[in-house]
Amino acid sequence: MERTLNKDLPGVIGKTVRIAGWVDVRRDHGKLMFLDVRDRSGIVQCTVTPHAEEAMKTATELRPQSTVVISGEVKERPATMRGKGPLGGVELSVQSIEILTLAQELPFDMSAELNLDTHLDYLPLTLRTQRSRDIFTVQATILKSYRESLRSQGFMEFMAPAIAGADAEGGAAAFKVNYYYDQTAFLATSPQFYKEIMVGPFERVFTIAKVFRGEKHATTRHLSEITQMDFEMGFIEDHFDVLGVLEQTVLDTARAVTETHSDIFERFGIEAPLIPSKIPVLTLREAQKVLGVPEAPDMEPEHERNICEWAKSEKKSDFVFITAFPTKARAFYTYEDPSEAPYSRGFDLLFRGLEINSGSQRLHDYQEVVDRIRSRGLDPDKFSYYLQAFKYGLPPHGGSSTGLERFTARMLGLANVKEATAFPRDLNRIDVRLSQ
Amino acid sequence: MERTLNKDLPGVIGKTVRIAGWVDVRRDHGKLMFLDVRDRSGIVQCTVTPHAEEAMKTATELRPQSTVVISGEVKERPATMRGKGPLGGVELSVQSIEILTLAQELPFDMSAELNLDTHLDYLPLTLRTQRSRDIFTVQATILKSYRESLRSQGFMEFMAPAIAGADAEGGAAAFKVNYYYDQTAFLATSPQFYKEIMVGPFERVFTIAKVFRGEKHATTRHLSEITQMDFEMGFIEDHFDVLGVLEQTVLDTARAVTETHSDIFERFGIEAPLIPSKIPVLTLREAQKVLGVPEAPDMEPEHERNICEWAKSEKKSDFVFITAFPTKARAFYTYEDPSEAPYSRGFDLLFRGLEINSGSQRLHDYQEVVDRIRSRGLDPDKFSYYLQAFKYGLPPHGGSSTGLERFTARMLGLANVKEATAFPRDLNRIDVRLSQ
Repeated sequence: MERTLNKDLPGVIGKTVRIAGWVDVRRDHGKLMFLDVRDRSGIVQCTVTPHAEEAMKTATELRPQSTVVISGEVKERPATMRGKGPLGGVELSVQSIEILTLAQELPFDMSAELNLDTHLDYLPLTLRTQRSRDIFTVQATILKSYRESLRSQGFMEFMAPAIAGADAEGGAAAFKVNYYYDQTAFLATSPQFYKEIMVGPFERVFTIAKVFRGEKHATTRHLSEITQMDFEMGFIEDHFDVLGVLEQTVLDTARAVTETHSDIFERFGIEAPLIPSKIPVLTLREAQKVLGVPEAPDMEPEHERNICEWAKSEKKSDFVFITAFPTKARAFYTYEDPSEAPYSRGFDLLFRGLEINSGSQRLHDYQEVVDRIRSRGLDPDKFSYYLQAFKYGLPPHGGSSTGLERFTARMLGLANVKEATAFPRDLNRIDVRLSQ
Repeated sequence: MERTLNKDLPGVIGKTVRIAGWVDVRRDHGKLMFLDVRDRSGIVQCTVTPHAEEAMKTATELRPQSTVVISGEVKERPATMRGKGPLGGVELSVQSIEILTLAQELPFDMSAELNLDTHLDYLPLTLRTQRSRDIFTVQATILKSYRESLRSQGFMEFMAPAIAGADAEGGAAAFKVNYYYDQTAFLATSPQFYKEIMVGPFERVFTIAKVFRGEKHATTRHLSEITQMDFEMGFIEDHFDVLGVLEQTVLDTARAVTETHSDIFERFGIEAPLIPSKIPVLTLREAQKVLGVPEAPDMEPEHERNICEWAKSEKKSDFVFITAFPTKARAFYTYEDPSEAPYSRGFDLLFRGLEINSGSQRLHDYQEVVDRIRSRGLDPDKFSYYLQAFKYGLPPHGGSSTGLERFTARMLGLANVKEATAFPRDLNRIDVRLSQ
């Protein structure tokens, strides 16, 4: 008999079917045994009665997370006995159970609230909880919608490299790689140079790329391996063209998540994001005035949270743009118009209290790029490859970079970005804890 | 005046518009000057006559690859004067030219056929050729279609990590990373363990992941950083379920490329792939018999080419599956049914003479995985994280892995996978040549 997916059971009431999945929960009521069986499409209750003698014997041996194939008759549950979820109206009256793999005793109750360390120590198991499945289901929707929105705006995808030849931006934050013949390479800290180069052939490009940051951060916002959703576009007037594309992309994505996953927001006890038709835009100075804090070249985490509170209550938006940071606080390639100095044409996008995106217009004139590299104490010769793009004509351009894990975490109100990363890498852990 | 994209010019004949782009080619005919201007949507011919005195002066200064904004009147070209391509029927009669960035003298003629080293030395420039733009346009379609096909078959995307804690499969091919506190990490050689773990929560998953191979290969088929399109699925009967999903995914993708890019196949002087309704399947032994070569545990590159020739002429297919390799020639997690020993439930997919995918049913029983790890001389303790997935119930499962660069290269008949990689990394090069 062909396998039926759980989600299709409401359409075959009265029929005998064969399902397959994980025993999510086993409830032993003595004469009756209930198994909640999970497959990729949903969870359905299976009822074992003493009539099915063999099945009852097998069910008694089962431990949660065992994988099974179950045959039985699909029955409608009376209204008073309805379970939760879209399959709460049906159950399977079990005729036979085949164990595919018998799980060992679980180290803890899967329904318990786990602390983050335990969660991370047992990811191959804890990723199976409803909570984790919800998080990465939302993340998959973010990835899909982000790409679709950018494609609809004329952007083309490319693959940026992870291995870089030099620690180009001169920070101490790049991990070293032992490359061939004892040469030192680095893990990319950003796809920035590559997406600017790709403006040359394609004008509008995006890449979803891994970046690696070696700073010794131990916060709720940092990881050493991050997924960045980056785009770059040519022939812009200024950074507001970039901001406009980002706005559409982020709002399209937030709308897709909201429309697709209302059940998940409900389970997380969090409102879907407040999505405005236009995201409010403040200069850094304006934001500091609103908050009544002194002028400073950047925002503290506390200020990010507070200005988001303000945007939410005053502008009905869970998103807010901050622009006009001082040029020297930004990456070397950030454009500064002489008339606007010392402020640059950059912006940050904050979402529910956290910066999730940074973007700007970039320098496009070859000589200006060379001069800026020098003024930052860097050596233009080390940038010869990147500089080719400028030597041979790049138009005014700009782009931005959204952190996938931060976006996911704030979407669902997770306290730590590690929970929004399937396999997080940080100071203390690469899958298992690092001995120190 | 708003910018008009080149592709929209045929719809506004007689109107005055403003376009922006790169000067792809400048042809000086004395009294007349022709500029081929490229934007993300296409290339259009712009004609400068002596009437536009200022524009003519500017055009004289222009070097190829400079970026410009041009205003002028859209005119229909007479049938006898039609240019090539979808915009060959129109031209822009130039009124004014604004130079955004003036390119330096190019190091070579962009229309020349370049050798691979020169191509790679100047990628920020050579990626702008029609040939490179075609290659990465096809690659973007492959990425999009592969994902869409898998999603339509119930697969969910996740992000696999690039940093790994151990060189898990015991090969010498993993690059070392200097992680925090002088600890050694490795670059992932495969997302294998992570996608098997993700079968636990999601049953059907895919990931497009970077993998890194440190073997000292200097061939036309190898890179040190590769993009793998991987999927993994649970509750299979055997490897033919996996092969079936791969078949649909690859054929969906090949059809999408064929339908979208007939112009590119024409420019490359290559036929679109022969797409059968069913891809022929041969066991390794059957393939060796067809080729009249001795029994051996694997196929040589020459045999891969020859069996593809056979499949093309005999089965009208540019694709062919080879199954039933000896277990010991495959990765340790490959499933072997006792009745089928010494052959395993694995397969390779060959496309136009080259292996582009490898897949199999995997071991799913905890003890069998532990035993197999031991039998390969590896230490199960080093696999404790991965083994959790098995300890707590994984169903019979399998998956496969397609090399994006190889798939792209064979699609367009490229001699070297480096040409199918925007920023290839190999023995000799990370962007610039490595000094040795």
